[in-house]
Amino acid sequence: MNTNIGHEMYSFAAKLFPICRSITGKGVRETLGEIKKLLPGLKFTEVPSNSKCFDWIIPKEWNIKEAYISKLSGEKIIDFRKNNLHIVSYSTPYDGKIKATELKKHLHTLPELPQAIPYVTSYYSEYWGFCLSKEQLDKLDDEEYLVKIDSQLTEGALTYADLIIPGETKQEVLISTYVCHPSMGNNETSGPVLATFLAKFIAQSKRRYTYRFVFVPETIGAVAYISQHLDELKNNVIAGFQLSCVGDNREYSYLPTRRGNTLTDKVMKHVLKHKVKEFKSYSFLNRGSDERQYCSPGVDLPVASIMRSKYGEYKEYHTSLDDMSFISAEGFEGSFNIHVECLNLLEHNEFYKAVHLCEPQLGKRGLRSNSGALGQFTPNFKLVSDILAYSDGESDLIDLAEALNVYALDLKTTIDLLLKHDLVKKK
Amino acid sequence: MNTNIGHEMYSFAAKLFPICRSITGKGVRETLGEIKKLLPGLKFTEVPSNSKCFDWIIPKEWNIKEAYISKLSGEKIIDFRKNNLHIVSYSTPYDGKIKATELKKHLHTLPELPQAIPYVTSYYSEYWGFCLSKEQLDKLDDEEYLVKIDSQLTEGALTYADLIIPGETKQEVLISTYVCHPSMGNNETSGPVLATFLAKFIAQSKRRYTYRFVFVPETIGAVAYISQHLDELKNNVIAGFQLSCVGDNREYSYLPTRRGNTLTDKVMKHVLKHKVKEFKSYSFLNRGSDERQYCSPGVDLPVASIMRSKYGEYKEYHTSLDDMSFISAEGFEGSFNIHVECLNLLEHNEFYKAVHLCEPQLGKRGLRSNSGALGQFTPNFKLVSDILAYSDGESDLIDLAEALNVYALDLKTTIDLLLKHDLVKKK
Amino acid sequence: MNTNIGHEMYSFAAKLFPICRSITGKGVRETLGEIKKLLPGLKFTEVPSNSKCFDWIIPKEWNIKEAYISKLSGEKIIDFRKNNLHIVSYSTPYDGKIKATELKKHLHTLPELPQAIPYVTSYYSEYWGFCLSKEQLDKLDDEEYLVKIDSQLTEGALTYADLIIPGETKQEVLISTYVCHPSMGNNETSGPVLATFLAKFIAQSKRRYTYRFVFVPETIGAVAYISQHLDELKNNVIAGFQLSCVGDNREYSYLPTRRGNTLTDKVMKHVLKHKVKEFKSYSFLNRGSDERQYCSPGVDLPVASIMRSKYGEYKEYHTSLDDMSFISAEGFEGSFNIHVECLNLLEHNEFYKAVHLCEPQLGKRGLRSNSGALGQFTPNFKLVSDILAYSDGESDLIDLAEALNVYALDLKTTIDLLLKHDLVKKK
Repeated sequence: MNTNIGHEMYSFAAKLFPICRSITGKGVRETLGEIKKLLPGLKFTEVPSNSKCFDWIIPKEWNIKEAYISKLSGEKIIDFRKNNLHIVSYSTPYDGKIKATELKKHLHTLPELPQAIPYVTSYYSEYWGFCLSKEQLDKLDDEEYLVKIDSQLTEGALTYADLIIPGETKQEVLISTYVCHPSMGNNETSGPVLATFLAKFIAQSKRRYTYRFVFVPETIGAVAYISQHLDELKNNVIAGFQLSCVGDNREYSYLPTRRGNTLTDKVMKHVLKHKVKEFKSYSFLNRGSDERQYCSPGVDLPVASIMRSKYGEYKEYHTSLDDMSFISAEGFEGSFNIHVECLNLLEHNEFYKAVHLCEPQLGKRGLRSNSGALGQFTPNFKLVSDILAYSDGESDLIDLAEALNVYALDLKTTIDLLLKHDLVKKK
Repeated sequence: MNTNIGHEMYSFAAKLFPICRSITGKGVRETLGEIKKLLPGLKFTEVPSNSKCFDWIIPKEWNIKEAYISKLSGEKIIDFRKNNLHIVSYSTPYDGKIKATELKKHLHTLPELPQAIPYVTSYYSEYWGFCLSKEQLDKLDDEEYLVKIDSQLTEGALTYADLIIPGETKQEVLISTYVCHPSMGNNETSGPVLATFLAKFIAQSKRRYTYRFVFVPETIGAVAYISQHLDELKNNVIAGFQLSCVGDNREYSYLPTRRGNTLTDKVMKHVLKHKVKEFKSYSFLNRGSDERQYCSPGVDLPVASIMRSKYGEYKEYHTSLDDMSFISAEGFEGSFNIHVECLNLLEHNEFYKAVHLCEPQLGKRGLRSNSGALGQFTPNFKLVSDILAYSDGESDLIDLAEALNVYALDLKTTIDLLLKHDLVKKK
Repeated sequence: MNTNIGHEMYSFAAKLFPICRSITGKGVRETLGEIKKLLPGLKFTEVPSNSKCFDWIIPKEWNIKEAYISKLSGEKIIDFRKNNLHIVSYSTPYDGKIKATELKKHLHTLPELPQAIPYVTSYYSEYWGFCLSKEQLDKLDDEEYLVKIDSQLTEGALTYADLIIPGETKQEVLISTYVCHPSMGNNETSGPVLATFLAKFIAQSKRRYTYRFVFVPETIGAVAYISQHLDELKNNVIAGFQLSCVGDNREYSYLPTRRGNTLTDKVMKHVLKHKVKEFKSYSFLNRGSDERQYCSPGVDLPVASIMRSKYGEYKEYHTSLDDMSFISAEGFEGSFNIHVECLNLLEHNEFYKAVHLCEPQLGKRGLRSNSGALGQFTPNFKLVSDILAYSDGESDLIDLAEALNVYALDLKTTIDLLLKHDLVKKK
């Protein structure tokens, strides 16, 4: 495993972090543009405003140049350029003097975290507002202020991107993440970063499965994507990963699919059990990312998540405290490795069947000592014997590993040996 | 809920209590007559003596005018008029002087409960006998007594009654109880009382299911009823309640069907878990009422029981101590309410399916705030979202509630809202 | 049960014990000859050397006349005649003087059990060697020794034997054991002894099932047998017992089939639960006898084992300490009885169905008191009633017993009564 991978990911996160993203607009395109530099095959799609996607209508495109609150003297007190969380996403334009009492109806703080700027959006109702820390709010004691919001809400488009890396079969592994959050680290600069580096990793070698990487604005983007690719997703996707909150180094979290028993769940649970040991296992009731769309009734794609600190479960969530110091190279590396384990396990999770009825004669192949002297078995004789005994063609590699109480990928060397000796075959 | 219902039920119990019932005879008809005053649609059926019902033959009809033991002086010591438990049910006639030693072969007491008169029957072998308390027995020190039993065993009929309240579908909920026990309270004046009041309740409103109320003498009456209605019961009954021991206020008891996994069991277990919390859960091995017939192999109706103090499990059972003081308005009200919960849940236990693929846009319907400001979701947004996420058309309301860890009927308001907004549909 | 059976078995074990068995040769034939004296119908089969059996080739036949190590003076120090474990099974001939340093490369001991001679074989690679105790080894301080091994490896045959005792149906119970171990008691003189006495027992009475007793050299013999009888085994065998380690009196052990849920497992678990209570339950991962072949993928016969001290789990295993003192009449008797329970349960494990819809009238058949007086039920009335209530034609006798929390064969008397009264029927 590339030991620099965590640092590379963290550097790339630092590049994406400052961009002001929302569910539409230039920030999304700029973000996808940075990703395309690493994934040249990335394909952009623009979904025009007012397009209907299942129950949703694509909203107007939002762009913003500047936004600030200043004293009448002109001194800027709250400035979007300092932190793009200061502006409520999708704020309508404003330019003029305003009484402090009126202004305060448009200000959002978090009293319980007095230094944090909260993250607030208003995509679907016309509104403008600023977010600021409680400490900043407490200093606003003038009677009047100037407010300037140079934003635009225009007929435009919602932008998403995908990348399909073909494999030996049409069966697909879906990896989806979102690109609509402004400057926050774990939720959500980390997801697109991990998706990008997993795509680079996948592209390096020949793979059994086709891989579909999807970068969408959360919710509306996922809905749009699914509505435009429903049949191919339903026909091809055999496992899916929703990437979110994968940048910090605190804990590991698992959020299952709605059914909880798909191939994705089976793979994630096996990998977590053997590679992480301690992790928080959530219910689908605790969902909160695009698995809400992928797992919705009738869509029913097997999409689950392995996260670090899960959205909604850490105090910095959806505030300016979820910044670049909250995430780390170590956090990224852990997430990368655990997802690579899952992908490798998926690739190798075949059904094996013993070739011969009864045990084969291992001795003549050098797979066990021919002498029944005590303690003279070849070191992996027990494993060879167990794999052969359980390879009934109905158990996949994970079933086999669970029966043998070992980690599935640890069986691979021995299974390869048995394949080479024509003692098991793939089914 | 009618807060007087318990008192009304108790008063009606007081009316039925004194009647001398057995498996046939005027006492059964008189009891059913009282019930018919409250349920005018009640239909009586007479099954003639000697009729064959599956493996059984309807016995002769038994009626009794008087029965006593008196001193030779004429002073009555044990008198059926004082308590109809004094006579062994189905006692043959007797009139004459008898030696005390011979008489005592016909006397039944309960040494462990010296003040209690036991309840004894001899339906299927010719016999006469008296039941009395141990204390009464101990006073019998004369050498001879006079015994008078003015009873009749004649070709007649076994009487049962039923009431069918049609609903929107032919699918039926069966509610069965028995009317053969003489003057005892919990087992069994309470069952017919609850059945009567549930029928009144059901008749008040339009219902999805058809309801079948059955009042039969225990065992032989249920056998007769099933033998005469087997096909319609097997074709139509989707859930069934055997009512027995529902009048006292001690505890709640649950007796499952033989299979333990029918819709009836599912409803009862969900209601008990959320509405009663502490209850005794019995095995079908502890059965003892007409579920013995309804759940018998080949009949296989989904009939279970929610009781208060279960037959055979309280010391007053089948004695004169199970009297009007053992049962109470509070006991009846609890039983009524828990059964109403079960019936309402059955009525509402539909399969729901989300109308739209992916999550619908709740904001445009006012079902969530359009602003993603922290803490500004509408109060039931999480519930709305969870119901939509789990409404896959394969989960009924109870499945849904179990997945969401809530009481099923507490979901109804929200589901109705979603139905109104065309976001879910019944399947 | 014959109380002398343990002693008879032990005596027969004493007769088989001294014979020098291997996977081929005269020792196998002599052993089978002794068994044939008790089971005249036993049929021998010779599989010629070089025959192909699935993945295996039958090796040359090995026979040995004498083998010793002597001082140059001629004094024999290690002599095969004293204990046939002294020679590595399948040792090639040798005759001549040898340096002690060279000789020691051919000597096998067990340092952790200094008085034990280990059991070593070299069936499939040419080799000679002696086994001796650590204490014997320590005394070898001459510079040179004479070694004589008068063995032969010739084109011959592998010998096995089987006995089929026909029953009412073609469905078979398979009982298999092995006859290739030289002088050791539990593993494995005990298996063939138990198989022999079970065959005698089975032959005594009419049986529903056909019984197939198989005596083979371990592994290669089982492979050969299966390869020559695959179709009939797969078509007919409904349960199977691998007999091994059934002679000592320490504990009971259960080794399931690979699937763990076959009829054999069901029978064994029910019998062990009710008749043994405390036993060690192993995983199929701990397998080690011919169930390795019978349960192999594609063969899939329902073969499991009830043992006493399991192979590999006692320190005397595969050494000279597993001798006639390690096994006992009591040990054999326990094994015999537990297997007879299993076989009887298999024979009686029918599906029963109640004849009448609803409960039948038990009183008219004397199966319960006609009087409902307290405490006057016939003693087995509850059992009668429960059997009738659960006899749905889909539950076999073991299911019935598990539902009733009783031992299945304890139901037999009552079921026979119900069969006699035409209240249940076999399905």
